[in-house]
Amino acid sequence: MELKRIVTPGIAHYAWLLADGGEAMLVDPARHVQAYLDAARSLGTRITHIVETHRQEDFVMGSAWLAKRTGAKIYNGNFDTFGHGDVRLEDGDTFRVGKLLIRALHTPGHTPESMSYAVYEDADAKTAWAVFTGDTLFFGDTGRSDLPAEDQSVENAGRIYDSVHSKLASLGDAALILPAHGPGSVCGSGMAERPWSTLGDEKTYNNVFTLSREAFSQKKGNERIPRPPYFRTMEKVNLAGGLPPKLRPGDVALHTVDDFANASSGQRIYDTRLPEGFAGGHIADSYSVWEGGLPVFGGWLAEADSPIYLVTDGDADVDPAARHLSNIGLDNVRGALAGGFEAWRNAGREWESSGSISPQALNNMDNPQVLDVRESDEFDSGHIPNAQHCYVGYLEDKVNELSLDKNQPVIVTCGVGHRAGVGVSILLRAGFKDVRNLLGGMKAWKTLDFPTE
Amino acid sequence: MELKRIVTPGIAHYAWLLADGGEAMLVDPARHVQAYLDAARSLGTRITHIVETHRQEDFVMGSAWLAKRTGAKIYNGNFDTFGHGDVRLEDGDTFRVGKLLIRALHTPGHTPESMSYAVYEDADAKTAWAVFTGDTLFFGDTGRSDLPAEDQSVENAGRIYDSVHSKLASLGDAALILPAHGPGSVCGSGMAERPWSTLGDEKTYNNVFTLSREAFSQKKGNERIPRPPYFRTMEKVNLAGGLPPKLRPGDVALHTVDDFANASSGQRIYDTRLPEGFAGGHIADSYSVWEGGLPVFGGWLAEADSPIYLVTDGDADVDPAARHLSNIGLDNVRGALAGGFEAWRNAGREWESSGSISPQALNNMDNPQVLDVRESDEFDSGHIPNAQHCYVGYLEDKVNELSLDKNQPVIVTCGVGHRAGVGVSILLRAGFKDVRNLLGGMKAWKTLDFPTE
Amino acid sequence: MELKRIVTPGIAHYAWLLADGGEAMLVDPARHVQAYLDAARSLGTRITHIVETHRQEDFVMGSAWLAKRTGAKIYNGNFDTFGHGDVRLEDGDTFRVGKLLIRALHTPGHTPESMSYAVYEDADAKTAWAVFTGDTLFFGDTGRSDLPAEDQSVENAGRIYDSVHSKLASLGDAALILPAHGPGSVCGSGMAERPWSTLGDEKTYNNVFTLSREAFSQKKGNERIPRPPYFRTMEKVNLAGGLPPKLRPGDVALHTVDDFANASSGQRIYDTRLPEGFAGGHIADSYSVWEGGLPVFGGWLAEADSPIYLVTDGDADVDPAARHLSNIGLDNVRGALAGGFEAWRNAGREWESSGSISPQALNNMDNPQVLDVRESDEFDSGHIPNAQHCYVGYLEDKVNELSLDKNQPVIVTCGVGHRAGVGVSILLRAGFKDVRNLLGGMKAWKTLDFPTE
Amino acid sequence: MELKRIVTPGIAHYAWLLADGGEAMLVDPARHVQAYLDAARSLGTRITHIVETHRQEDFVMGSAWLAKRTGAKIYNGNFDTFGHGDVRLEDGDTFRVGKLLIRALHTPGHTPESMSYAVYEDADAKTAWAVFTGDTLFFGDTGRSDLPAEDQSVENAGRIYDSVHSKLASLGDAALILPAHGPGSVCGSGMAERPWSTLGDEKTYNNVFTLSREAFSQKKGNERIPRPPYFRTMEKVNLAGGLPPKLRPGDVALHTVDDFANASSGQRIYDTRLPEGFAGGHIADSYSVWEGGLPVFGGWLAEADSPIYLVTDGDADVDPAARHLSNIGLDNVRGALAGGFEAWRNAGREWESSGSISPQALNNMDNPQVLDVRESDEFDSGHIPNAQHCYVGYLEDKVNELSLDKNQPVIVTCGVGHRAGVGVSILLRAGFKDVRNLLGGMKAWKTLDFPTE
Repeated sequence: MELKRIVTPGIAHYAWLLADGGEAMLVDPARHVQAYLDAARSLGTRITHIVETHRQEDFVMGSAWLAKRTGAKIYNGNFDTFGHGDVRLEDGDTFRVGKLLIRALHTPGHTPESMSYAVYEDADAKTAWAVFTGDTLFFGDTGRSDLPAEDQSVENAGRIYDSVHSKLASLGDAALILPAHGPGSVCGSGMAERPWSTLGDEKTYNNVFTLSREAFSQKKGNERIPRPPYFRTMEKVNLAGGLPPKLRPGDVALHTVDDFANASSGQRIYDTRLPEGFAGGHIADSYSVWEGGLPVFGGWLAEADSPIYLVTDGDADVDPAARHLSNIGLDNVRGALAGGFEAWRNAGREWESSGSISPQALNNMDNPQVLDVRESDEFDSGHIPNAQHCYVGYLEDKVNELSLDKNQPVIVTCGVGHRAGVGVSILLRAGFKDVRNLLGGMKAWKTLDFPTE
Repeated sequence: MELKRIVTPGIAHYAWLLADGGEAMLVDPARHVQAYLDAARSLGTRITHIVETHRQEDFVMGSAWLAKRTGAKIYNGNFDTFGHGDVRLEDGDTFRVGKLLIRALHTPGHTPESMSYAVYEDADAKTAWAVFTGDTLFFGDTGRSDLPAEDQSVENAGRIYDSVHSKLASLGDAALILPAHGPGSVCGSGMAERPWSTLGDEKTYNNVFTLSREAFSQKKGNERIPRPPYFRTMEKVNLAGGLPPKLRPGDVALHTVDDFANASSGQRIYDTRLPEGFAGGHIADSYSVWEGGLPVFGGWLAEADSPIYLVTDGDADVDPAARHLSNIGLDNVRGALAGGFEAWRNAGREWESSGSISPQALNNMDNPQVLDVRESDEFDSGHIPNAQHCYVGYLEDKVNELSLDKNQPVIVTCGVGHRAGVGVSILLRAGFKDVRNLLGGMKAWKTLDFPTE
Repeated sequence: MELKRIVTPGIAHYAWLLADGGEAMLVDPARHVQAYLDAARSLGTRITHIVETHRQEDFVMGSAWLAKRTGAKIYNGNFDTFGHGDVRLEDGDTFRVGKLLIRALHTPGHTPESMSYAVYEDADAKTAWAVFTGDTLFFGDTGRSDLPAEDQSVENAGRIYDSVHSKLASLGDAALILPAHGPGSVCGSGMAERPWSTLGDEKTYNNVFTLSREAFSQKKGNERIPRPPYFRTMEKVNLAGGLPPKLRPGDVALHTVDDFANASSGQRIYDTRLPEGFAGGHIADSYSVWEGGLPVFGGWLAEADSPIYLVTDGDADVDPAARHLSNIGLDNVRGALAGGFEAWRNAGREWESSGSISPQALNNMDNPQVLDVRESDEFDSGHIPNAQHCYVGYLEDKVNELSLDKNQPVIVTCGVGHRAGVGVSILLRAGFKDVRNLLGGMKAWKTLDFPTE
Repeated sequence: MELKRIVTPGIAHYAWLLADGGEAMLVDPARHVQAYLDAARSLGTRITHIVETHRQEDFVMGSAWLAKRTGAKIYNGNFDTFGHGDVRLEDGDTFRVGKLLIRALHTPGHTPESMSYAVYEDADAKTAWAVFTGDTLFFGDTGRSDLPAEDQSVENAGRIYDSVHSKLASLGDAALILPAHGPGSVCGSGMAERPWSTLGDEKTYNNVFTLSREAFSQKKGNERIPRPPYFRTMEKVNLAGGLPPKLRPGDVALHTVDDFANASSGQRIYDTRLPEGFAGGHIADSYSVWEGGLPVFGGWLAEADSPIYLVTDGDADVDPAARHLSNIGLDNVRGALAGGFEAWRNAGREWESSGSISPQALNNMDNPQVLDVRESDEFDSGHIPNAQHCYVGYLEDKVNELSLDKNQPVIVTCGVGHRAGVGVSILLRAGFKDVRNLLGGMKAWKTLDFPTE
């Protein structure tokens, strides 16, 4: 038996390869399936079963494409959203991978169709060795409950609670929890940093076990997590098991400065550098979306077929950036600036700088205009006095509704400065004259015990 | 300016990437174009020109696929076999890559349409910095002259001579020679091991310069180099600029022993291990084709659509083997034995061994039956007394015409033992009882000064 | 918190890197510590604690060298064999790595000083998140109990039982078991193939929990596992925390055939190819030790300072082979044959072949001479009728005491044919004329239901 | 025959590996010799000859260490600075590498002992296949002539001219030129971007051929190239054949923010990010030295044993930065900030930002204070009107001699902004209040046709 976790960075997604006796199951593949084929090859096995816990909302699934490349069958549940499956399992159904016994468990709540899959070392085992929990049970958290319907989030949280207690709790404390996401995913909040976890660990630390059903439902059901617009596209493409990758490494053309200037003129430019670099200099009207933020904020700022141009730190960053975008279905990456921003400014092209500010300096300002672009729950947990709030995802639409003076300095903040960078670029595009990123963000601000409200 | 040589192993093929000023030309792409895109990316450039020297016969070209992935135009000559080109050049036509000037030169002989491309650092340069010579001029050799028509090989050799002398000789002794093949290719013979060469070097060492036209034509035109049957397929697919790759890494399924036994039963199995390992044990009726020999001898033993099963040293050898086969259009690789031959014998499956013999031991045998499977020119240059001759490529068809006693030991030899390994497996399939590979082959035999005739 | 397992292949050794809050502990480093530094770097942390579970016997430890390179302190127990430690812990002592609490547990039995280290997520945790068990508790097994004194093996097995039950059993079923070895180690037998395990899993499957103290002690204490001679050297060098590596990649010189022949004449040659290749051809008097077997059988056949020469499949196999040998302190690797065995035979040098035989063929032989070179427990569990037995490690010393006719065929067998390959080469060196390896070994033999006794 | 160029980035150094017949020569090894051993291994050969063209001034040589690891002999000339050589060659002496003939040529000028080594394919060859030219002849340039004595630079340029014409010119136009440096080295100026060059190419384009002796001597001899202070250390350590590396990958400890703040307090911090990032935010009093500039400007700002702390973009940049410093003997790298500058500002630590300015914005300023930190020749070739000049290497010593108002904005410029970044950080350390980097530098300025004088 072999187990490998294959992480898709940026979306903190975990796919799992479980191999035994010349067979292997791959749980919840994302679009770039080559990593799974490589992993199977390195273990001397082949993927024979593709197993889905639910219809993913936050990334393009790779089930259909992986099935085509391997000939493996897709195993999932008997619900409409699983229509592309080859083997449609009912709660309690079992199948074999090598000598391992896999039992399907219907665990609704995060989504109505959510399934978990318990793994038994042999047919007689009383307790599970592990359980693939999808977005039902994370390390230290559960999946969000608002996706099926925002106004039924509390009820769905109760359904998660029931699924966990009725289907998972009895699998044995020793069972490894193998979820579909880790810390950083938009599918949950407050996940534990524990690299491995067991059911016993979750019973000790996870709210779904430590709180009552009522308390858990209220807490989880009242989380307000934004729902990026690209989720709708994901829902659609994933109904058919997702899409094959479109862009391969090297496919995004590196343009000379002149070519890039011509081609990107009037188009959407994503500058993937860190906020410090963007502050030091950037192409006018470009969006600042740091590399790791592309598979979330790239999707807030573009439609599925929007042409996108990239400005990076260097050419080696182009393929990872395009990969991040492709994970959420943004395939129309038309080109990148060869040599990164440096090439642009060395060619004598016009560019702009923006500001950065330290917490200490901000704390010394009188009546600064502060814009906090974090999520509502984060904002409510403590923010800079008199800060205005607008989640970064909504900022482009709402920028003109804010009570901000475009001709006075605006300080933008978030957790540590990444999302604020996105916000800075949106304000600059909207005509603000002096926009500064509070580098270190609320993390630094709170560390310094500066006032919050 | 940057220059990179990208080698396709097994066929000793050189593609060349020449970059300047944000543009790059890729000369003579083979099918697996990812390597060219990676190379361009690493140089911070993109491929804008795809340049062809001739319609290749020994591998699947990648021009059309590379054009599709990059948007680059295909540059070639004004001949029927170049019909898929975007820019059809006449002798003397020029184009630019960055500030470099490229001049097309019609250099027929190896094939009627063969082109060379001289590179000048600037428009005023009197001598060329380099010249892409395709199969017209190699390091220490020229391309073979028999391909257009076997009975006009001497005439075509003369055409090569004329092309070299009229078009290339005047480019300047300092010009780098950048050919399409290196030592080991089936497109030439006797290439020099020199890693880089200039026109000056060739003038010193190459027969096309050191011999008279008459002497060169006779020598080159009378070489007898086999023409593998897959050449016909290559000619066809390359008329359209070749094919995209079909199998990606990891696509060849690793089968358990039972699955492999069932699937491969009655099918073509290629055992890619070295001859020593094959002698020590192999699956009955499998062909012994060492890994590096797949893109030649794999093509003698199969049709383009023949199902093929692989037995390797280990799982890491499966993808390279499939890659080799795909280079000559053999895409129907149905599976590989997980764990290699070792898995087979450990599972208690039946297998066979065959023999190996040292030159010393053979020299002590009385009247051994020796079969020499080298090419005719090699055989004629000196062979073991009384050895029979049949080129390995023809052996399967002609094995029953040979005067060999199937019930007596047969010793098979070639250069060092690789091709002999192919021959051994063909004889075993034909019912020979005791077949032994002369490991070290004629190289060892001659080193030991054993008798030849 | 991050956890990484770093495996040393060949000895199935697990080192563990556990990082939290800018600190990291490395448990049981082997000699080639670069892998640990690379792992720490990739996690953005540095190694601050080196933790030892016991004085290793089967490989050169890397504690002292890792301490020198990192400045980290060595944590171990208060026993003589731990004299090189910086922090000498008593049973129950605790220390911190980031916010994690580590508790030292004295768990003697495998060796008198054996320690385990329980990991708690915070100081208030009632159950452990994981426990580093060294050679005390493996997945599905415990460490061997014969090392401290062969005649007290049963008593020591009882001590292991007591350690597990008194110190580990109460840590909580959810605790991950993090041992120093996996399947394939000479430090245990019959380990489970489970890739991860918890205390709960072990309680279900491990003899130390499923058997009574008496039954476990008798079973474990009566195992007869050979003790390779290099263990004595390991005991000595590991008293001081082991040794730095001596050979780096590329340090083993690749010799031409002539140079190799001169240098290796009369010296110890290890041929690291698979038995099939060795059977097909090998240098006379060389030992056949397949690559993965070097860190065990390489040590049975050489002293710590013995000069060793390598024959491999190819040049890429030279460094891994030298690495394997260095893991058990064999640093005097003087050179390797450039191009592997193939270069040798192509140069016309003399060589020999030996035989391989299938189970089916052996089963048809009348009164074959069979030599079984497995361990005593393996032999006793079922062997070919009339087979003689001599463990491969003792064979060179005892070959002349066996009742074997050197002029008649001898069939050598083991599990699948690797150790038999070592045995074949020892018999050939001893003057046996016709030695054949039963490829597939007893695994294949039993699969075929051929007779055993 | 095989030839490989192994580049040391940052110092644009070329080492050359030339292999034939189981032997190989390595010309001009730098300190990190592992790359050479890896290259030899990949070619199936071993390094038997280490060949030196001269005592290097700009990096730590690796001859002695490579000799120790390989057992190879060091070949150089019969001059005092070559005292560590094993084989001391006179002009015209020859030796063999495989079947290749190597002829030593004394080519003084760059340094008195400078040697070149011509390569002949065989003993009878009339023209050389290639020539290793060290710093005597580059692509499009020659080595600088001021090193032996600044006041004899013109005379030494004449000596270079004589060496080239008397010793190299007759080797044949087809000879490949294989020098010790490429574009970007401090050992020359104005090298051609040609990736390969022949003697014929040089005769066409290189001043040493296209100018008269007098004209060349005056031009080359009057170049004013700064001589970094670490050259003196290099001269000393290279007298003994250089030094082994001290730091290996992973050896630079990654510190938490608190640890880094404590340890680096009052110490030299090198911030290796691009100038844009440094402008956006940096630790007060840190030096801005972009990664690629470390092996030059790192040496202007520190002594050989100065403790150095690193701030990078991310942890993956730490080892490359330390490697750059080690190439010029700066081995006392005490630690790096884990997580880069981002970790620092997220922890709430104080930091500063500085300014960047575009050419367009500068062009609109009235009477700006501009400081140009390029070399004298660059400054004289055209600078911004009224700019002051001080080469960046001298700036720390001379900053208080400049006529700059510390309380008014200062714009710093160089070629494109890298060296200006170093200058910015020096001015900030000296108490300047508002310092701005002209990103794009004089390259952008001139592209825009803004006024120069």
